[in-house]
Amino acid sequence: MDQAVSVLAEVRNGRDRERDLRRVGVNRDHWYPLAWSTELKPGKALAVRFAGEPIVLVRPKQGPVFALEDRCAHRQVMLSKGVVEGCAIRCGYHGWAYDQSGQCTDVPYLGKGKLPNGVRAYPCREVEGLILVFPGDPALAETVPLPGFGSVADPAYKTRRFGREVGCHYSFMHENLMDMNHQFLHRKQMGNMVPRYMGGAKGEDFVEARYTFSRVGGKQPWAEAAIFGERRAVGTEASTAQKDLMTIRTEYPYQTLKIQTGDDAPVMNLWIAYVPTDAEQKRNRTFGLLSIKRPKIPGLLEAGWPVLILFTERIFKEDREIVEMEQAAHDAQGEDWNQEVFPVIRNLRTLLRERGGASIP
Amino acid sequence: MDQAVSVLAEVRNGRDRERDLRRVGVNRDHWYPLAWSTELKPGKALAVRFAGEPIVLVRPKQGPVFALEDRCAHRQVMLSKGVVEGCAIRCGYHGWAYDQSGQCTDVPYLGKGKLPNGVRAYPCREVEGLILVFPGDPALAETVPLPGFGSVADPAYKTRRFGREVGCHYSFMHENLMDMNHQFLHRKQMGNMVPRYMGGAKGEDFVEARYTFSRVGGKQPWAEAAIFGERRAVGTEASTAQKDLMTIRTEYPYQTLKIQTGDDAPVMNLWIAYVPTDAEQKRNRTFGLLSIKRPKIPGLLEAGWPVLILFTERIFKEDREIVEMEQAAHDAQGEDWNQEVFPVIRNLRTLLRERGGASIP
Amino acid sequence: MDQAVSVLAEVRNGRDRERDLRRVGVNRDHWYPLAWSTELKPGKALAVRFAGEPIVLVRPKQGPVFALEDRCAHRQVMLSKGVVEGCAIRCGYHGWAYDQSGQCTDVPYLGKGKLPNGVRAYPCREVEGLILVFPGDPALAETVPLPGFGSVADPAYKTRRFGREVGCHYSFMHENLMDMNHQFLHRKQMGNMVPRYMGGAKGEDFVEARYTFSRVGGKQPWAEAAIFGERRAVGTEASTAQKDLMTIRTEYPYQTLKIQTGDDAPVMNLWIAYVPTDAEQKRNRTFGLLSIKRPKIPGLLEAGWPVLILFTERIFKEDREIVEMEQAAHDAQGEDWNQEVFPVIRNLRTLLRERGGASIP
Repeated sequence: MDQAVSVLAEVRNGRDRERDLRRVGVNRDHWYPLAWSTELKPGKALAVRFAGEPIVLVRPKQGPVFALEDRCAHRQVMLSKGVVEGCAIRCGYHGWAYDQSGQCTDVPYLGKGKLPNGVRAYPCREVEGLILVFPGDPALAETVPLPGFGSVADPAYKTRRFGREVGCHYSFMHENLMDMNHQFLHRKQMGNMVPRYMGGAKGEDFVEARYTFSRVGGKQPWAEAAIFGERRAVGTEASTAQKDLMTIRTEYPYQTLKIQTGDDAPVMNLWIAYVPTDAEQKRNRTFGLLSIKRPKIPGLLEAGWPVLILFTERIFKEDREIVEMEQAAHDAQGEDWNQEVFPVIRNLRTLLRERGGASIP
Repeated sequence: MDQAVSVLAEVRNGRDRERDLRRVGVNRDHWYPLAWSTELKPGKALAVRFAGEPIVLVRPKQGPVFALEDRCAHRQVMLSKGVVEGCAIRCGYHGWAYDQSGQCTDVPYLGKGKLPNGVRAYPCREVEGLILVFPGDPALAETVPLPGFGSVADPAYKTRRFGREVGCHYSFMHENLMDMNHQFLHRKQMGNMVPRYMGGAKGEDFVEARYTFSRVGGKQPWAEAAIFGERRAVGTEASTAQKDLMTIRTEYPYQTLKIQTGDDAPVMNLWIAYVPTDAEQKRNRTFGLLSIKRPKIPGLLEAGWPVLILFTERIFKEDREIVEMEQAAHDAQGEDWNQEVFPVIRNLRTLLRERGGASIP
Repeated sequence: MDQAVSVLAEVRNGRDRERDLRRVGVNRDHWYPLAWSTELKPGKALAVRFAGEPIVLVRPKQGPVFALEDRCAHRQVMLSKGVVEGCAIRCGYHGWAYDQSGQCTDVPYLGKGKLPNGVRAYPCREVEGLILVFPGDPALAETVPLPGFGSVADPAYKTRRFGREVGCHYSFMHENLMDMNHQFLHRKQMGNMVPRYMGGAKGEDFVEARYTFSRVGGKQPWAEAAIFGERRAVGTEASTAQKDLMTIRTEYPYQTLKIQTGDDAPVMNLWIAYVPTDAEQKRNRTFGLLSIKRPKIPGLLEAGWPVLILFTERIFKEDREIVEMEQAAHDAQGEDWNQEVFPVIRNLRTLLRERGGASIP
């Protein structure tokens, strides 16, 4: 009895419920990008992974991309090493063939009446240069909407597609971006910028934070000027007026970052997804769509594009190194020693824990 | 009682008995090649492995090769790093010496009366360019015969010795070779050949399968012509008559493949052994003796030999890649998901399971 | 009851007490070198490890070196990747700062009143070019003396600092050096030297062994001549008189090796420490101070120094290879199969077991 009371007290205090965030599996009942469209040529297959599950994406010469378990039902070798034939893929070992529903449609040395079981098919869509798969309950695929993709479809914007595999749990990525106090990490790239937290919001499936920034030292990078469409000196009114508003939002499982300079349309709009690749979910592949509003002077953005790419790559590299260090620390410590003092991040952690899927074994 | 009934039912259904084939250890009570003779020079020692056991092969300047545990009884370092002295091997660390029976015969700083325990010796033979060891019960070594080695001893044949370490359980190797429907894997090397299963045989310690082939597309490779001693065009009588008979036989633990073109002496005779190297038996070293019957025209085989080597290396590479993929799938899946539909292979799997040794922990 | 009797008997026989030496953790209540002074520049931080614990050494531009846990209390990333500011180190991620006591002294976006917990500090000293840390109970740091460092402070000697990480438990290092019968290992570098054990000594915290040597073959290496200050031919009186006395002593946890040629001051005086770097203590970083007495002819030692460095590097390489082989054998065998026949080494093993710390999990 006493024990039950104490357990109840713990639950009330929120301790017992708080499972280790780094062991919360991603919620499978969403659409996740698994590849860029450009990675998969017509008549070819591509091996990808979702949380350790091998998946083959197949693009027939005619017809839409489809996604199957990347294993032959016979001897379990990767179908992605096989041959695309019409709207089917044939295993490269003994030649078993599967259609887009995963059904086995041919075993060359067996009668049609005796065909064995096939493999699992995943709902699959191709939108805005991304190939997305629904790894959860297929019955939900129709009702769960695809994400918006920021401003990628708006011709007023130019979009950079970027990302790569990062060696950490996806939650580190969300926390990294939302806590703008990590500006300190990028001091060499951006100079000394001081973020000011301007409040946030939260709901059942989102957490949002808003910031302004003051430059207190260092030079404004050219790439930043390209984004804002103007140059600002340290200590001038423009640099300290804090009129630029940055809004970072995790709308589970995606994340966005917008910069607005006063009017409604953001000058920068980033949409980003972090997709676990391994079974332990200690690695994620990042798919980012960074949309920059085209300035009034034609060609200016194009001219600055290489600098912008270099700048964002450097920032991303610093972020990757630090979140991989966080993962390494978690691996060594065996549990989450995080001592979070920033309420926004505490809310974000709760969101990721509550909206997440089953715990990782 | 109810439980016992249900277990019995399971045994009857064949489930309980069927331990995972990939966890069946090789039967130790056979002779296994551990090295080619040419790898071990006189007065030298060679480190090899059998199922994770470190073994040192020693070739004295005079006298036959012998095999010991590859560890000094003192500090457990590899004897193979030591010095061969007469018919003994001396550890390179503190100089303890062992004879061919594994007895410790000298500790330089100790009286002869106080000599400590030695190490295990293995029965060892050298035949046809192979050094073979009997890793099982030494009392059985005399009664268990050495294998035949195909046609290697027959001067009417020229033999190629080949093989390397492959990252899979030995059972994948047996299944790969015996299921000729995997011809599809080699379509780029061999063109489109359609195998026809002509029946098989099985006994207490063997399984055998017979095939003929029709070429339905692609060009006959030169190396194949070299083996058959003649060239054949697609669609000609020779290409479709299916007079060439291929016989593949696993006679535990070895495997053979013979091609006969009508008369009794095979034009090709392959003998092959797969020896686990690591404790988990997820790697095997392959020792193959590929004997080709010398054609009537002298020098023809020698002239074609480099092409034949290249051809067989390419085939072997494709096989190695696919069986390593099978092993990787088994590692990921944690058990054998194989869905076998070909009765010959089902028989082969039963043979390997029943003749195999203790399960791998 | 019977069982209890049998357990008691085992304890009496010394079996039950003898925990596996390779799983005895090093005793933390001593001073351990973690870096050479030259590795840490003013205003910089250095990441080191003690038995798996990440430690950051910080050298302010003014003031003594200090040592902290190498993790930010916030997000656990390495403080050593941060910035040294005065006598504090600031984390490179969100800018939390810590002083030499490990206290958190600043979170840029938080009021001073709300500062969170800091990190652990370690007692730290810098002596004779070594940075030493006391990883045990800090209350004992004042009373546990720093080690002597051989003859490093004596101007009559020239000292070589050497060492690197070796992939084995520190106990293998102690045993390697103390058992001079391992001279056989260095036969190619030193020629055929026969050690003679001249007796030893042991106490609560030390074991000592004394040896003389006779050269029975091979040429005396130049480096050895440089140490002794004279050349000796095989079979001459000097080579066989065994007047040179080598004394090897483990005074827990350090080790020394002295060579005396008759008078009291040793011609060579080696002080050496083996510091576990990983949590499993299967790796150690070696810090050696090799002091050679300067000969009467000025400049002679300096002239021979490069040869001496080469010679000791070669010896050290052979030792490293063999002890790493010992560790690999222990890993494979899963326990200590050592069959020790030399009483000195048996005493040494008992000392290391009894003076050691908690068992490694």
